[in-house]
Amino acid sequence: MPAARPAPLRIALLGCGVVGTQVARALLEHGPDLAARAGAPLELVGIAVRNAAVQRDSAIPRELLTEDAETLVDGADIVIEVMGGLEPARTLLLRAVAGGAAVVTANKALLADDGPTLYKAADAAGVDIYFEAAVAGAIPIVRPVRESLAGDHVTRVLGIVNGTTNYVLDQMASGGLDLEEAVKQAQDLGYAEADPTADVEGFDAAAKAAILASLAFHTRVGLDDVAREGITGVTADDVAWAARTGHVVKLLAIAERTEEGVSVRVHPALVPTEHPLANVRGAFNAVFVEADAAGPLMFYGQGAGGRPTASAVLGDVVSAARHRVLGGKGPQESTYAALRILPPEAAVTRYQVRMVVADRPGVLAQVAGALADHGVSIDTVRQAAPVDGSAQLLLTTHAAREASLAATVAALRGLEPVQEITSVLRVEG
Amino acid sequence: MPAARPAPLRIALLGCGVVGTQVARALLEHGPDLAARAGAPLELVGIAVRNAAVQRDSAIPRELLTEDAETLVDGADIVIEVMGGLEPARTLLLRAVAGGAAVVTANKALLADDGPTLYKAADAAGVDIYFEAAVAGAIPIVRPVRESLAGDHVTRVLGIVNGTTNYVLDQMASGGLDLEEAVKQAQDLGYAEADPTADVEGFDAAAKAAILASLAFHTRVGLDDVAREGITGVTADDVAWAARTGHVVKLLAIAERTEEGVSVRVHPALVPTEHPLANVRGAFNAVFVEADAAGPLMFYGQGAGGRPTASAVLGDVVSAARHRVLGGKGPQESTYAALRILPPEAAVTRYQVRMVVADRPGVLAQVAGALADHGVSIDTVRQAAPVDGSAQLLLTTHAAREASLAATVAALRGLEPVQEITSVLRVEG
Repeated sequence: MPAARPAPLRIALLGCGVVGTQVARALLEHGPDLAARAGAPLELVGIAVRNAAVQRDSAIPRELLTEDAETLVDGADIVIEVMGGLEPARTLLLRAVAGGAAVVTANKALLADDGPTLYKAADAAGVDIYFEAAVAGAIPIVRPVRESLAGDHVTRVLGIVNGTTNYVLDQMASGGLDLEEAVKQAQDLGYAEADPTADVEGFDAAAKAAILASLAFHTRVGLDDVAREGITGVTADDVAWAARTGHVVKLLAIAERTEEGVSVRVHPALVPTEHPLANVRGAFNAVFVEADAAGPLMFYGQGAGGRPTASAVLGDVVSAARHRVLGGKGPQESTYAALRILPPEAAVTRYQVRMVVADRPGVLAQVAGALADHGVSIDTVRQAAPVDGSAQLLLTTHAAREASLAATVAALRGLEPVQEITSVLRVEG
Repeated sequence: MPAARPAPLRIALLGCGVVGTQVARALLEHGPDLAARAGAPLELVGIAVRNAAVQRDSAIPRELLTEDAETLVDGADIVIEVMGGLEPARTLLLRAVAGGAAVVTANKALLADDGPTLYKAADAAGVDIYFEAAVAGAIPIVRPVRESLAGDHVTRVLGIVNGTTNYVLDQMASGGLDLEEAVKQAQDLGYAEADPTADVEGFDAAAKAAILASLAFHTRVGLDDVAREGITGVTADDVAWAARTGHVVKLLAIAERTEEGVSVRVHPALVPTEHPLANVRGAFNAVFVEADAAGPLMFYGQGAGGRPTASAVLGDVVSAARHRVLGGKGPQESTYAALRILPPEAAVTRYQVRMVVADRPGVLAQVAGALADHGVSIDTVRQAAPVDGSAQLLLTTHAAREASLAATVAALRGLEPVQEITSVLRVEG
């Protein structure tokens, strides 16, 4: 007697932009493979869009499009949300969960803003919520951190999680462009949006940092907990000096656990050229994870784009579908550790301070004295050839607290022979 | 009313070597964290060893040790196997599964030899079998390929999955050592065993290639299906020439899907220095995966060692435990695709052929003719300065079938002006 064929699972897709189109195509074109992996056919029952009259990809049947997202959600087993933005995404996902549907979302902004509300609702309803695509596009990072490292202690996550800024910094380094030129080039190539604020000011990376920190440390971390600094302050000169001292400038999303608590931040940082993250070029993403037992791990791949993001979405859909068919449930978001989130000024890192000082004896002693007064110790000093009575000094410090460094910089500014503090950059990795 | 506390899960550990010791320590020392993640306390009820009288790590209570593995297995909810070897591991795991226990194993040899028997038994019994630690130690690669990429099509896997040979090749490149010296150094540092055969002949890498290929292509691939060539034929000269042409020599585990079927092989290969795998140094491992939608992905980390491997084991234990507590089941091994496994001579790749020829006009034309006769086209030719009437020729071919290349090399050997075919290396990545 042949086994009963499992009933198809009804899939609702919310959003039909770059990612949604690729998700829809994959569901329509790879049915048999997906069914074999999921354990049941996956039937795309509808795609909610704002305007169903707009022309879409020719592979997408018009009759799937609907402007009535609520009704679509109500009849679904699995709801995929790739519309982005806080509303109506939040309301629709809460409705899906309340109705017993599993949810797969790529919405980093929503998760960073209000993830715990969604997680709790999914937990109460006993349904899955998956979001691999919300961090670093195609790169499997959510599942490894949530599941593969569930028996280990993650101590640090360093991520290049925004391809636009990585491309911009890369062009500054390789092409000698200044920031504005590099951003313009990224816009021309479609890597940056007309309004690049979310990328260059670090908002996108901060949302991903909040999600990664929550997963890694089993602690609720929201967007407001992330200290954020974009790349708008990075100059061509900073990038050139970085190269001279064996570093590259990267915009990093950092989540660290110390004995005192958790530090989560996004800022440009100098990364030594021999560090695996230094070789991550162009619009690629990579996440470097350090765990007590596993040691250093790195995950590398495409962090954005329709097809890569759709790959991550569909992996989640298959997981959710398997649970529908075979029973069981994906991992719950757990915040059992509830570690303290440290204020930005408590972060501890190394710094490179570049300054212009008067070229005369005794100046270095004064500068060194100012650092020592604030408990900041110097690792290396480098002095460029003096020009017109001024010398350029490059100090690298040992690890120091952000608060101490800020006080040191203020003190240096007050020193008579210090003409300019040209830049202050953190050194990571 | 407080929720009922879940009953502890009984964990049996088979083996107490380098990995087993670290697994035991973690279970004993991180109880509360593991319980929070697993949803129930994990109680280590015993450790099966060959000789319980041998002194162990001081953190491991003697009373946990037993020589009666059968009884231990019979009373367990989850059985962790880190003893290695085919027997008694296979018999004990089949017994565990038949008795309803979930299984976590790091045993690559057993999985490559007879995985499908285990998978089928686990499937029939409705229990989990997890084996993240069997491939590339701490690096999450099994879970990403099985689950994260479940909605995508993997087309190629290129892995540096044996740290010993990677260390040896690295030393040959950076220190100019010959193979024997580099192996000796690896042995002195504990990276290679007294009998390095399993590593240098590629057996270890071949077992991992079989496992990765099975997962990536949903096709049953055993050790016998893997074309295997170790690094014993790699000379210091090969490594030096590789550097001169912008390559590094790596021992790669390769699994490729073409329209004709699946090719799985392990051999030394020239990797371009700009490829992400080229920068994987020392005893580190990395697996490079190409998928249709996701594009290129890379997973990097420590591929061996007690603590890293234990990290992977414990991640699996938490997954298995969650299914015990919450219901559900991990992914089943599926071989629904059942693709054809191609014979080694059907593999298609580029080649670098180094040879010594007589230094006189017309020789290159003869050589080029021999290649053309077999349908192999030349990409580049490089000639070193002639010495004593002989010239060194370095040919790089376009992609060609292994069978065509073999016939070409035989024909070249028969040419009067060809004095020696010094080396034939594949170019990958």
